[in-house]
Amino acid sequence: MDLDVQTDILEANDAVAAENRRRFDAAGLLVINLMSSPGSGKTTLLEKMAAALAGQLRIGVIEGDIATSRDADRLTAVGVPAVQISTGSSCHLNADMISNALSSLDLNALDVLFVENVGNLVCPAEFEIGEHYKVTLLSTTEGDEKPLKYPAMFHVCSAMVVNKLDLMPYTNFNLNEATANALSINPRLAVFPLSCTTGEGLDAWISWVTSRLDETRKRQK
Amino acid sequence: MDLDVQTDILEANDAVAAENRRRFDAAGLLVINLMSSPGSGKTTLLEKMAAALAGQLRIGVIEGDIATSRDADRLTAVGVPAVQISTGSSCHLNADMISNALSSLDLNALDVLFVENVGNLVCPAEFEIGEHYKVTLLSTTEGDEKPLKYPAMFHVCSAMVVNKLDLMPYTNFNLNEATANALSINPRLAVFPLSCTTGEGLDAWISWVTSRLDETRKRQK
Repeated sequence: MDLDVQTDILEANDAVAAENRRRFDAAGLLVINLMSSPGSGKTTLLEKMAAALAGQLRIGVIEGDIATSRDADRLTAVGVPAVQISTGSSCHLNADMISNALSSLDLNALDVLFVENVGNLVCPAEFEIGEHYKVTLLSTTEGDEKPLKYPAMFHVCSAMVVNKLDLMPYTNFNLNEATANALSINPRLAVFPLSCTTGEGLDAWISWVTSRLDETRKRQK
Repeated sequence: MDLDVQTDILEANDAVAAENRRRFDAAGLLVINLMSSPGSGKTTLLEKMAAALAGQLRIGVIEGDIATSRDADRLTAVGVPAVQISTGSSCHLNADMISNALSSLDLNALDVLFVENVGNLVCPAEFEIGEHYKVTLLSTTEGDEKPLKYPAMFHVCSAMVVNKLDLMPYTNFNLNEATANALSINPRLAVFPLSCTTGEGLDAWISWVTSRLDETRKRQK
């Protein structure tokens, strides 16, 4: 794409993202943008968090998919307010799509809003949506070299969830190697190895989210 | 993106793709564009094919990655002529990148050229590179609903390799469901369940490739 066109698109997007952020902060809401390859387990992680935090925190979800409302249906089924964005052919969510989706959510009735981006380890990293934190999932079946091959995603994120620990014994995935590769791209990355199937590691990840909520609320005051 | 800008980009790309195709046909070469999510096993499949076809067919590879030359290095290590394209921030290969890479390959010394696209189940589907066939990989750890969620990729491909059959027992992936989902998007899709780890199913996939070579050479005469 022409570089000027791309710069214009990103600048226009950033302006809408800043307006989204103002709305999130006015509602005292923490917003986390979840990004990964297709099939890394974003929706399953959200299901597990919804169950673990039920009665403690009010969670909402915006689902971004090219087609189908399967992911939003899965979350609605476990009692989570979920809005589906169908992007058509677009390979990422942008700030405009989020702005439009917000009209379907009561922000004041939520503590944490997760945005599940389109499954894509490349393009979503470029588009701010007004979130407070970006988080990427890497599953053990994808290979421990992925942070080096897709560096932009790991560079922009605050945390990396390493999912599917239960499948690691059947692969050649090396957790230390994956962690070292990710930290070589972004030394400030918080790393959470876990399994949504066995529940191992979920507590540490959930603690990180609740700590981010506390910190964000202090800044919002 | 502005729709006119996108149309212009795709039309310019198609013209270069047609020129690439003329070069492939003049050299009597079959070219297959391999596309999938990151970590579905594209490079491993190429390693296995190179071993299986050694002494029978002359294989070459063009590797597309955002960063690193790890995949080309893996193939060079097993004796396959491989050219690495580093796309920088681009989420897909385009016809221009392929055209430039061809100067580093002796096309007349090859029978089949595989192009391993950037790991991305969305954007590469839109860009012709002059290939004769597009093939997508779906691994059992990614989930059997993926063809419905990323329909464009499955629509443009001639074949779907379902990889990591060896991991299927540890997941909730249903092979019949995945196949039905893919065929609902594209009824002409040839489906090859296999495991690069155990070797199961590799023969049928390799037969498909060699049949495509025979057919393509008949058309090229």
